[in-house]
Amino acid sequence: MPVCRSRVFTSQLSPEMDGRVVHLLGWVHDVRDLGKIVFVLLRDKEGIVQLTIKAGSVPSEVLEIAKSLSREDVIHVEGVVKKSQIAKLGIEVIPYKIEVISKSDRVVPIDITGKTPADLNTRLKYRVLDLRRAENWAIFRIQHAVLQVIRSFLVERGFIEVFTPKIIATATEGGANLFRVDYFGKVAYLAQSPQLYKEQLCAVFERVFEIAPAFRAEKHDTNYHLNEFISVDIEMAFADMFDVMELLEDLIVEIYRSVKDRCRRELQVLGIDLRVPEKPFPRFKYSEVIDYLVERGIEVKWGDDLSTYHLKVFSERVGQQPYFIYYWPTALRPFYTKPCDDNPEESESFDLNIEWLEVASGGTRIHDKDLLERRIREQGLDPQSFSSHLQFFKYGMPPHAGWGLGLSRLLMMMLRRKDIREVVLYPRDRYRLEP
Amino acid sequence: MPVCRSRVFTSQLSPEMDGRVVHLLGWVHDVRDLGKIVFVLLRDKEGIVQLTIKAGSVPSEVLEIAKSLSREDVIHVEGVVKKSQIAKLGIEVIPYKIEVISKSDRVVPIDITGKTPADLNTRLKYRVLDLRRAENWAIFRIQHAVLQVIRSFLVERGFIEVFTPKIIATATEGGANLFRVDYFGKVAYLAQSPQLYKEQLCAVFERVFEIAPAFRAEKHDTNYHLNEFISVDIEMAFADMFDVMELLEDLIVEIYRSVKDRCRRELQVLGIDLRVPEKPFPRFKYSEVIDYLVERGIEVKWGDDLSTYHLKVFSERVGQQPYFIYYWPTALRPFYTKPCDDNPEESESFDLNIEWLEVASGGTRIHDKDLLERRIREQGLDPQSFSSHLQFFKYGMPPHAGWGLGLSRLLMMMLRRKDIREVVLYPRDRYRLEP
Repeated sequence: MPVCRSRVFTSQLSPEMDGRVVHLLGWVHDVRDLGKIVFVLLRDKEGIVQLTIKAGSVPSEVLEIAKSLSREDVIHVEGVVKKSQIAKLGIEVIPYKIEVISKSDRVVPIDITGKTPADLNTRLKYRVLDLRRAENWAIFRIQHAVLQVIRSFLVERGFIEVFTPKIIATATEGGANLFRVDYFGKVAYLAQSPQLYKEQLCAVFERVFEIAPAFRAEKHDTNYHLNEFISVDIEMAFADMFDVMELLEDLIVEIYRSVKDRCRRELQVLGIDLRVPEKPFPRFKYSEVIDYLVERGIEVKWGDDLSTYHLKVFSERVGQQPYFIYYWPTALRPFYTKPCDDNPEESESFDLNIEWLEVASGGTRIHDKDLLERRIREQGLDPQSFSSHLQFFKYGMPPHAGWGLGLSRLLMMMLRRKDIREVVLYPRDRYRLEP
Repeated sequence: MPVCRSRVFTSQLSPEMDGRVVHLLGWVHDVRDLGKIVFVLLRDKEGIVQLTIKAGSVPSEVLEIAKSLSREDVIHVEGVVKKSQIAKLGIEVIPYKIEVISKSDRVVPIDITGKTPADLNTRLKYRVLDLRRAENWAIFRIQHAVLQVIRSFLVERGFIEVFTPKIIATATEGGANLFRVDYFGKVAYLAQSPQLYKEQLCAVFERVFEIAPAFRAEKHDTNYHLNEFISVDIEMAFADMFDVMELLEDLIVEIYRSVKDRCRRELQVLGIDLRVPEKPFPRFKYSEVIDYLVERGIEVKWGDDLSTYHLKVFSERVGQQPYFIYYWPTALRPFYTKPCDDNPEESESFDLNIEWLEVASGGTRIHDKDLLERRIREQGLDPQSFSSHLQFFKYGMPPHAGWGLGLSRLLMMMLRRKDIREVVLYPRDRYRLEP
């Protein structure tokens, strides 16, 4: 068993280690065989290092093995670090031993070096190979960084992490677009959001967050919808729309700042010069957006939902800075959204957009039981099917507000990817259940 | 809208604040009306503080409101902090204003003060009210702490956080006990574990972890099974069973140590004097356990699975110290478990138990494609249905090992609760889909 506790990662190699013996483990990223000299690029989870195997200066069996290597072989290397003016890391490694741990097929369906790009469908089909490309190394290390930042940001502000059930008996927001599950002979659904649970829980813990999968059975064919996605959800007692908008604004700034600071190599690989957005983010009333579009001759009226086309037109005005659209028509929002006191046609609700894409959505929620029941009925739903939820509004439900943020939508826009599938390890869409 | 940015949490109150004006928000935990003096306990997410309302020393309307309060009313209080020898926190608050934000029904179905205990079924029925009890305050704050420790522990060791799909096309470990989902007319399943995905991903990122829901359609009626649960999963390239056992051991010690350090108040509420387990944890071969049981006249033979009864008998020998049982019969473990080289009847696999309960399970995995295919067939499964997974074993699959840890099982045993439902916000069992 090639367990190698004395192993060194490529990121730990430096010119100061000149002359030191190291053990390396990883994949053959590429081989260049020039006859009397063979260059092997070894890739591990941290990066790539060059192995230089020169006839005469290494044991002959090492040269032989080096010549037999092909891309994606898994190897164990023992060698000596040598300073180098030419090599990327400022060093190369001269192996005195190469052991092949796991042999790869010679023909690899995806070119991991990136020299021959593949289309997205092929890439997703061979996802694990595709993920070995530098671009994906960067994307998913950034996702990892973003997740850690989100949690530490929320934990510092007194939020408690919760997990709410994903198999549920009642539709959260209406009933359409739910995946059905056979639950021991009963009909159940997959949660499209933790909405009702997080509202209940903020009547206990006041500030809760959850980062977990959500499921929507929507038949979309866009580059920004998935049927399973990771939702970052918060809910906060004794807060209104403005409180949670500010929280979200602070969080987004913190995410960009951290990624810019801590993921320099990753951003470089992706060719992105990340601009940290400035606070406060621009805020536009829904009605202002409608007016703007109408002035530009677009046929849209108050009460209509904003399409991607509308947002594309409107966002030209804003640029890359994230912005809020708030005070949406009550009728366009889910039943739990609080209507404005002075004008119930409008609601205390908002979306956070980056360019043309909604990345988060939230608002003040209704905490009055009678109003909530009325709104459920007004949206054509049956309060009876929400009785298990509604009962808790009798026992001290505090005013509260919250939002849900699509992790992958944020990543897609931040990293300027063209399709949300690029920033999800194993995307699920209407047509894609595998791998 | 009672947004109160100048709000003080009960945890921030201290005798040094004597004479200071504070705003408090929270729930009426209890009221004691002695006629000319009313004591109100105000509860917020951090704890409880006493409000003392004495006729003559507060405005008469404040006394009136105080007398009208009932348990679980949500209130906003403005008052003056006063040192007190008698009160729990060393202080009380003398309100000059009390505003009722959200009135509760007088009859609350669960006694949140804990004076009248309810049975678990009633507690789960009114879960959000039950969760307001001090015991649950403690349990879920500890869960929160445990989650943060697990992640920081793994991140420090170079693990990257991943999310794998929960809607899947193929059964991970065989096909039985899966919840079926209707996926746009196709049959899909809910993932019972991220096993195959995390193995694939360790051929990319080498060290991955995921903390996410898992789903098993098992018809259990025990105090330690749930049909939806949070699984802490890791997978590690270039590692074997012993590496990941040590990692797990270190993690468990770190969890106990952190909880003991950081959750003193919570442990006190639960009446638990937490003992941090010592390393190394005892390790017993499966065959040793069988021998031990046979010696005690229990009818069991090599090859049998160990029942809860068996583990109850065996664990008396060990006490509360977590321990490993390893080298399980290959036939008892999932197909991806690596058989021992010198004796393929035994496998490089382990369980981590606390007393009679398995809290984690793992081992070395097979990384050789031919062997994996053979094991799939030997377990009566069809390699064809794993083709999407198997194909990746052709392109440089490193040796790897990993484990899955049941978050709630660990909490249940650590916090000495009798039923796993007590440490899950909204448990899902055969009979329980709501709330």
